[in-house]
Amino acid sequence: MRTPDELRELVEVDLSRPEHWQKDGLGEAVRYPVDGGGKRLRPVLCLAVAEAVGLDAERLLAAATALELIHTFSLVHDDLPALDDDDERRGRPSAHVRYGEAVAILAGDALLTKAFALAASYDRPGPAAVLADATLAMIEGQYLDITGADVEVLELHRLKTAQLFSAAVRLPLALADRDDAADWLTFGEAFGRLFQLVDDLSDGDGAVERYGALRTRELASDQAALARGALGRVDADTGVLALLLDELAAQAE
Amino acid sequence: MRTPDELRELVEVDLSRPEHWQKDGLGEAVRYPVDGGGKRLRPVLCLAVAEAVGLDAERLLAAATALELIHTFSLVHDDLPALDDDDERRGRPSAHVRYGEAVAILAGDALLTKAFALAASYDRPGPAAVLADATLAMIEGQYLDITGADVEVLELHRLKTAQLFSAAVRLPLALADRDDAADWLTFGEAFGRLFQLVDDLSDGDGAVERYGALRTRELASDQAALARGALGRVDADTGVLALLLDELAAQAE
Repeated sequence: MRTPDELRELVEVDLSRPEHWQKDGLGEAVRYPVDGGGKRLRPVLCLAVAEAVGLDAERLLAAATALELIHTFSLVHDDLPALDDDDERRGRPSAHVRYGEAVAILAGDALLTKAFALAASYDRPGPAAVLADATLAMIEGQYLDITGADVEVLELHRLKTAQLFSAAVRLPLALADRDDAADWLTFGEAFGRLFQLVDDLSDGDGAVERYGALRTRELASDQAALARGALGRVDADTGVLALLLDELAAQAE
Repeated sequence: MRTPDELRELVEVDLSRPEHWQKDGLGEAVRYPVDGGGKRLRPVLCLAVAEAVGLDAERLLAAATALELIHTFSLVHDDLPALDDDDERRGRPSAHVRYGEAVAILAGDALLTKAFALAASYDRPGPAAVLADATLAMIEGQYLDITGADVEVLELHRLKTAQLFSAAVRLPLALADRDDAADWLTFGEAFGRLFQLVDDLSDGDGAVERYGALRTRELASDQAALARGALGRVDADTGVLALLLDELAAQAE
């Protein structure tokens, strides 16, 4: 079993493989937001689940990279002036500030499409199907968010964040033909909800605006407990996953 | 063998199936540009190739619908103010005029993702891989076009248009395990180039601006001859495909 840092390094190496990127202006604009860093938590989770169920992490690398590209696509489009209008992302100019709106729109489109090219490189359609499901939910969540629809903040969390974390868990399962999927899905969704609650606590928005910091910490603690319980029931070597969960949960305390 | 009109009707019925569309505001914005009509030439070509190689057109319907959704995604994003800034599409307000820029961006993203969900509904990853390849080429073409890169207009045609027509041919081949692929690919690309030349003749732009109408007609005639030659060499029942080709070629005369 590799540590989270070792798995993260695998992801970074794969993300920087030159064959992923066109060597031209669009390729540069596509790569720019991917190079912006971030914790790579979705792909690391994906690889950790793979190892937990006895698959080679390397076998999941294309799917894990696809996950990160879809996450990055969502950041690039969400930052656009017509949507959240964010000029900065991870301490650098956001893609539309750096390359202009038109190229940022196309770069987001290319990131999303490249993710499906990677997902379709497996011997079965399952990975692409899992990613498409999760991405449709994510887009729906962003739609509800920006149109100010009357939707509970925790339902927005489920759509905008938790579905892609669930996909991180479902991708290795799709390649391992596992039958204890219910607990795995509970774990993935709870992990994703916990991640978003931690993010809201850090930024002081979302659930914190709606419920206050104290209640948000309680909600995070509930999701951590839910994820731990589900992880305890799956038939797998869950040490690294428990570590990832504990690290995340500690940030909500 | 069904006629082009019968195949088109199959496509229209499938595109209007309510289970494709979320019943909410985003679902409405996603469906709006699809309902705007158009000749559905890409999906009709896909179904006609399916029948020519002995597959049920119905088996290709999900892939054909995916093709049309990808084409529609490209129209919605290309019409945006930051790109081509077109307020009208097929005689109606374009998506961003009707629903606002933010929702139009998300609707385009959802169309693209839904296409991959459909492509991943097959028992193999081939259809999703074919669509991802073609879509990446299309986005690259749009990038070169809007950034005014020094690229020959016929190379833009290949990227922006012909790759998706090639995909219309490759999708049934991916499900039929055919080995005469080279002639099929020549046919698909020549058909797509012919389509774009006809479009330029109709709009007076693109190749017509670059070469004049007379030379553009000659180029179209060359592509029609290339497509006819390739079609003559494939081992298939090509009557309906020849009809589609003749109808298209007649528009360039």
